[in-house]
Amino acid sequence: MINEEYKAMLGGKSVIRELSEYATSRGAEIGYQNVFDYSLGNPSVPAPKSFTDAMVDLYENGDPVAIHGYSPSLGIPSVKDAIAENLNERFGMAYTGNHIFPTTGAAGALSHAMRAVTKPGDEIITFAPYFPEYQPYVKGAGAKLTIVPADTENFQINFDAFEAALNPNVQVVLINTPNNPSGAVYSADTLKRLAAILTAKQVEYGHDIFLISDEPYREIVFDGATQPYPASFYANSLTCYSWSKSLSLPGERIGYVAVNPTATDADLLVPMMGQISRGTGHNCPPSSIQLGVAKVIDQTADLNVYETNMNLLYDALTGIGFDVVRPGGTFYIFPKALEDDAVAFCMKAKEYDLILVPSDSFGVPGYFRMAYCIDTEKVKRSIPVFEKFAHEVYGL
Amino acid sequence: MINEEYKAMLGGKSVIRELSEYATSRGAEIGYQNVFDYSLGNPSVPAPKSFTDAMVDLYENGDPVAIHGYSPSLGIPSVKDAIAENLNERFGMAYTGNHIFPTTGAAGALSHAMRAVTKPGDEIITFAPYFPEYQPYVKGAGAKLTIVPADTENFQINFDAFEAALNPNVQVVLINTPNNPSGAVYSADTLKRLAAILTAKQVEYGHDIFLISDEPYREIVFDGATQPYPASFYANSLTCYSWSKSLSLPGERIGYVAVNPTATDADLLVPMMGQISRGTGHNCPPSSIQLGVAKVIDQTADLNVYETNMNLLYDALTGIGFDVVRPGGTFYIFPKALEDDAVAFCMKAKEYDLILVPSDSFGVPGYFRMAYCIDTEKVKRSIPVFEKFAHEVYGL
Repeated sequence: MINEEYKAMLGGKSVIRELSEYATSRGAEIGYQNVFDYSLGNPSVPAPKSFTDAMVDLYENGDPVAIHGYSPSLGIPSVKDAIAENLNERFGMAYTGNHIFPTTGAAGALSHAMRAVTKPGDEIITFAPYFPEYQPYVKGAGAKLTIVPADTENFQINFDAFEAALNPNVQVVLINTPNNPSGAVYSADTLKRLAAILTAKQVEYGHDIFLISDEPYREIVFDGATQPYPASFYANSLTCYSWSKSLSLPGERIGYVAVNPTATDADLLVPMMGQISRGTGHNCPPSSIQLGVAKVIDQTADLNVYETNMNLLYDALTGIGFDVVRPGGTFYIFPKALEDDAVAFCMKAKEYDLILVPSDSFGVPGYFRMAYCIDTEKVKRSIPVFEKFAHEVYGL
Repeated sequence: MINEEYKAMLGGKSVIRELSEYATSRGAEIGYQNVFDYSLGNPSVPAPKSFTDAMVDLYENGDPVAIHGYSPSLGIPSVKDAIAENLNERFGMAYTGNHIFPTTGAAGALSHAMRAVTKPGDEIITFAPYFPEYQPYVKGAGAKLTIVPADTENFQINFDAFEAALNPNVQVVLINTPNNPSGAVYSADTLKRLAAILTAKQVEYGHDIFLISDEPYREIVFDGATQPYPASFYANSLTCYSWSKSLSLPGERIGYVAVNPTATDADLLVPMMGQISRGTGHNCPPSSIQLGVAKVIDQTADLNVYETNMNLLYDALTGIGFDVVRPGGTFYIFPKALEDDAVAFCMKAKEYDLILVPSDSFGVPGYFRMAYCIDTEKVKRSIPVFEKFAHEVYGL
């Protein structure tokens, strides 16, 4: 018989997807160029030409049996080595290829990492605002997700609320920096303080607490800054990555888990993830894409447009009178809504063809998310519409 | 803390992988050309040039944002439509694209199909000899796998044993035809009889019983025959497929589940699989590979070498005195060992650099599997070695 639990899930559609589908259907009516669709985090810049060239070279000059053959279940060794070396150079780590587990994007990485260091019933803590898809990943692992309320001052960590939430059942703390949806980049101070608390609590509780760090936006940081590398602050760290954003390859489903060599049982965790894959039918990301990203490991797509768009929107929104924390990275901005009910606010914006995502599903009421991975020209055209909307509806 | 269950699994290495690793290390000693490695089912023929051309065309002339963008969570509509049309033409089915769920190979397909139509504790029946990786897929779904003893006469279905095993807790019957490891192709008679039993038992038990049909070897059938399409015999059928073998793309992890439009809740099952993906971090196979296989949907690699190899081996082995059921398809052959203990037999063969897989993990004692997806030249060179081995050790 069909599984009633999954059947019941069919009701619960993602708000983001629903808005995105609305934007598409509205676009069919009035022309998609007239819909200011800030709903979906789908990168708008092309993959770098070097990636395309690398793939064409693989296809044209490689041995098809080797390129398309089974990847070893823990990933292709040369690819794992390339990832380890790149992380070591950039962040002063000491990974070997054996600490790298290639996955189908960050979703695959998080799902494997969570299963590896929890058992059903364990608690995972994360911080609002948070990416709503963490809920199914945590549920899939059989664990329970606790959300620590946001630090709305600057979207770093609300440490008082975090310390109040900690308890001996917590096995994992999950962070996402640069952050979707706030655009915040956790500072070295934030990461140091987080590590100090976790280190003390490991002693107090008498068990490991793993830090799972979700970093698909690592390379999208503004003002010439860089993201401090979370695993360099804390031994028991599992770093989850995806090339979705840095190489603009979201549909290729390629990422990895990097196990900090100083973590407890560091040498067991990647082979354990191989066992986890067998039960989910994952069996490694595509061989050819593994080989392709390894060839351009030190490159990114041209990500400048995101900073351009952020500055345009930040200046415009603050000029209109919105309360906004300036994003340090990503392609999201997370302003305060002009009324307490973010859903009502976004529904009113929809009347102006401004497609904004209410913050409720991110664990914070009263804000909205804009994904500005769209053409700068459209961002510019949306600004007078924002002005009109804020003026006509809220008298700004 | 790290998960003790997955940690404990690290002990249990796959026999096939272990033998394959032995073959590789032995090859480093004496030259791999001197190791008759029949262990692994890794296709030896190249992907068709038309696939390479299609991929190069996508990369060179496509819009990278479209090619590498997120696939919708239920798959790319044009790809789903192409798969449905191809199946309808070949097998007289009535699929629409909405009945097709693209997956990361057959492993992903089986894992999704099993979760969709079982709940934890349910029973899944399959038939020996069977592919050992069914165990982790079933365990991952929380179900229990029951193995029906083999029909060693011709490796069709042992119906007496099957009817004895059926009980109201059985929700799924899992078949694999053409079969790994036996090479058997289930006949129309076998499939008709199976469908009749399932239809009667659905009425008797008062609930659906789903047939999950694993068909990665569908296009490798010998003597000009074809595999009768299992779903055409039974309404509640979920067909699991992979292009690993037909297009020689095992590392690209691309396949699908096709839900028979006449199945119970046929229109819900694909959306439910989308929900299942969220919990496992699957999120659709790579967009570019989905688009690539759709362009060569009616093609295969040059698969003739497998039939050539099968005939050489079948004739040689029967000539030597082995008891062998002639394979109807796949690239496996499953002869009876020359002593009751298949492991002892294969260990003795290893001394002759013949790498054979004992049948125990396939659920049948006393046989061995040879994966003859290797060069014909090597198959030929292995024959005198087989003769020598059988003569020196078993006096044949």
